[in-house]
Amino acid sequence: MSITYPHFDFVINHKSQHFRARIGTLITPHGNVDTPNFIFCATKAAIKGGLTPHDMRQANTQFILSNTYHLMLSPGSDVVAQMGGLHKFMGWDGPILTDSGGFQIFSLGHGSIASEIKGKRLSHRPKTVLKIEEEGVVFKSYINGQLHHLTPEKSIQVQRGLGPDFVVMFDECTPFHVDKNYTAESMRRSHRWGERSLQEFTRHHDGTQALYGIIQGGTYEDLRSESCDFVNEQPFFGHAIGGSLGASKQQMYDVVAHAMAQLNPKRPVHLLGIGGIGDIFSGVKNGVDTFDCVHPTRLARHGGALVQPHLQPENSSKEYLNLKNARYKLDSSPIDPDCGCHTCQNFSRGYLHYLIKAGEMLGLHAITIHNVYFMNRLLAAIRQAIVKDNLDIIEQEWIHRAQ
Amino acid sequence: MSITYPHFDFVINHKSQHFRARIGTLITPHGNVDTPNFIFCATKAAIKGGLTPHDMRQANTQFILSNTYHLMLSPGSDVVAQMGGLHKFMGWDGPILTDSGGFQIFSLGHGSIASEIKGKRLSHRPKTVLKIEEEGVVFKSYINGQLHHLTPEKSIQVQRGLGPDFVVMFDECTPFHVDKNYTAESMRRSHRWGERSLQEFTRHHDGTQALYGIIQGGTYEDLRSESCDFVNEQPFFGHAIGGSLGASKQQMYDVVAHAMAQLNPKRPVHLLGIGGIGDIFSGVKNGVDTFDCVHPTRLARHGGALVQPHLQPENSSKEYLNLKNARYKLDSSPIDPDCGCHTCQNFSRGYLHYLIKAGEMLGLHAITIHNVYFMNRLLAAIRQAIVKDNLDIIEQEWIHRAQ
Repeated sequence: MSITYPHFDFVINHKSQHFRARIGTLITPHGNVDTPNFIFCATKAAIKGGLTPHDMRQANTQFILSNTYHLMLSPGSDVVAQMGGLHKFMGWDGPILTDSGGFQIFSLGHGSIASEIKGKRLSHRPKTVLKIEEEGVVFKSYINGQLHHLTPEKSIQVQRGLGPDFVVMFDECTPFHVDKNYTAESMRRSHRWGERSLQEFTRHHDGTQALYGIIQGGTYEDLRSESCDFVNEQPFFGHAIGGSLGASKQQMYDVVAHAMAQLNPKRPVHLLGIGGIGDIFSGVKNGVDTFDCVHPTRLARHGGALVQPHLQPENSSKEYLNLKNARYKLDSSPIDPDCGCHTCQNFSRGYLHYLIKAGEMLGLHAITIHNVYFMNRLLAAIRQAIVKDNLDIIEQEWIHRAQ
Repeated sequence: MSITYPHFDFVINHKSQHFRARIGTLITPHGNVDTPNFIFCATKAAIKGGLTPHDMRQANTQFILSNTYHLMLSPGSDVVAQMGGLHKFMGWDGPILTDSGGFQIFSLGHGSIASEIKGKRLSHRPKTVLKIEEEGVVFKSYINGQLHHLTPEKSIQVQRGLGPDFVVMFDECTPFHVDKNYTAESMRRSHRWGERSLQEFTRHHDGTQALYGIIQGGTYEDLRSESCDFVNEQPFFGHAIGGSLGASKQQMYDVVAHAMAQLNPKRPVHLLGIGGIGDIFSGVKNGVDTFDCVHPTRLARHGGALVQPHLQPENSSKEYLNLKNARYKLDSSPIDPDCGCHTCQNFSRGYLHYLIKAGEMLGLHAITIHNVYFMNRLLAAIRQAIVKDNLDIIEQEWIHRAQ
């Protein structure tokens, strides 16, 4: 099987001499993306914190993603399709990626993957995955408990209706706590689901979308290798590293490094659901081109403003200022005096502290604007560092270390 | 007693031939306001719905107000003063008015005034006003139940600390359900409080603030007349009509008309807490220069988008579209195709409907932007109609009538 992507391309402009890091241009029907870059989560076809597409552009955003799982349940891909697809529906004219729906179904079904990576293996969420079989998966809607069936074919159809630039093959996202046998069986079924995703994708392929393949295999090197071989051999436009990346940062870095060494270097690689500053530097050094995570917007909802280490006065390795802290009550300086975002140009830490305490929406809205701008500034600094080949040096300006 | 306001002025540019309506310019240390105009409520030093001062400017806003009652309790006027005053604290460089704190204290204490005007006289809120005496009022904080004492002197001091352009004398806002004797006694005490407000105001008067006097007297013509005489004789910069305006729209219009006929026509007049479209037309015809109301921003939080009558398809006299209604699910048109606001330029009714249903903050943020822009468009249309002397004609394009 072969697929051409006439309206898409991935051009590598420069490679680091010391790392696998590269800077590139992802060419799409909705404009270009400079890589490495960060993809912001518009989970339900909207950025949290009430940011408009204009706000996102003002904060230098190039790329967003939405979640198939949420959108297939509400408003439904038929509604989005009738409204002209995600770009028109949301008013965002830049590139969009949707996931396959698998991650949310399985992370809710098995317990949260994100929690696992952070070392919290147990989840008390109710299990919503009722059956996983060769055909697909049966799960309960998180909205109303209604039963839904999702198959590779259905996932691709839903993503076709949603109309993003990038779609993702349907896979099972295996958690950390399952054994190697289960991980292997699940991975091979995901590969078969990947082939079915490709077949369904080609049925309506008109050049407007490009398909990413997903690498599974948990923390097992041999399985990850097998999964890399699978995606390399299939006509995917790009690759995404998914599944459990282990229980520690180091294990995650090892899994990513192992996979990156084997993936076709001509294709763009996305690292699913990862957005810590140190994690991004590690990923970039291994050649990862794009990242996504709810972290920057979620953190803002809890009063956390991302900062570089020199602005962290709280004797902590946290990547953010906790603006709920009473120490900021009379602080008339912005979050970061050197930041060019709308929030830092207009509001003080003291005002933001007050807004959060008062429950005023403007507080989290303004902190979200800062966090989005911060991530875009971080990735721009990384791209520049790749050109200058000084990633190790600028890393010191960005990564927070325990004191 | 005489007070000069060297940095303020109110210039009447044109008077209607058929009504008391006039267009003017309110000159302040933070720029000019075209009158008639609408003052948007930044109750707790922030516009609801997460709108930044930039968003407000983009929606053509000239004038905002904040509430002394809320800000004296949190963060406290000392904090706002230390942070450089409201303009700097909020990042809003245009004119600001604060009220005296009286309205909220008494409307919470007596039961809501706003509900009364809408004909709902009974309130089940707990009474928070503990004592009203010549010296001032003792009330419980809505935040933590702590006891506070507010006097005319304290109100003016708090407003001095907050630092708006316009401050308001301290008064008791009498509700509808009290008798004429109580209304008269309360009004005369408010007049004495007004004199003490003036004295306190002059103690620190440096030209940066201008004081408004309030007309009380409930629905009694003789009392309203007495109150108009009081404010006319005192060196207030402007006047505000407060207190109970009756139980029906017609009674409100009559009370306002009666007061406006007696107030010094050289001073600007504000009508407190009124923002219905018909109410604004009625007020303008009687010569009212500014209005304020939480309605445009509160309505947005409930999915209501203000529209002109020709856009109301719901066979209703409501001034807004209820975007929660399922009829908008697949509606790809904007709220108003002729509206120039950011929301109408970028989002469809269907998307806004979906956002509200999904609980996404962007929904109410976007509808708030529209409602603010709508009010500013309405007042601009009214100003133009005063110049052309065709208020009665353009009223037909804006006022919703029962069908």
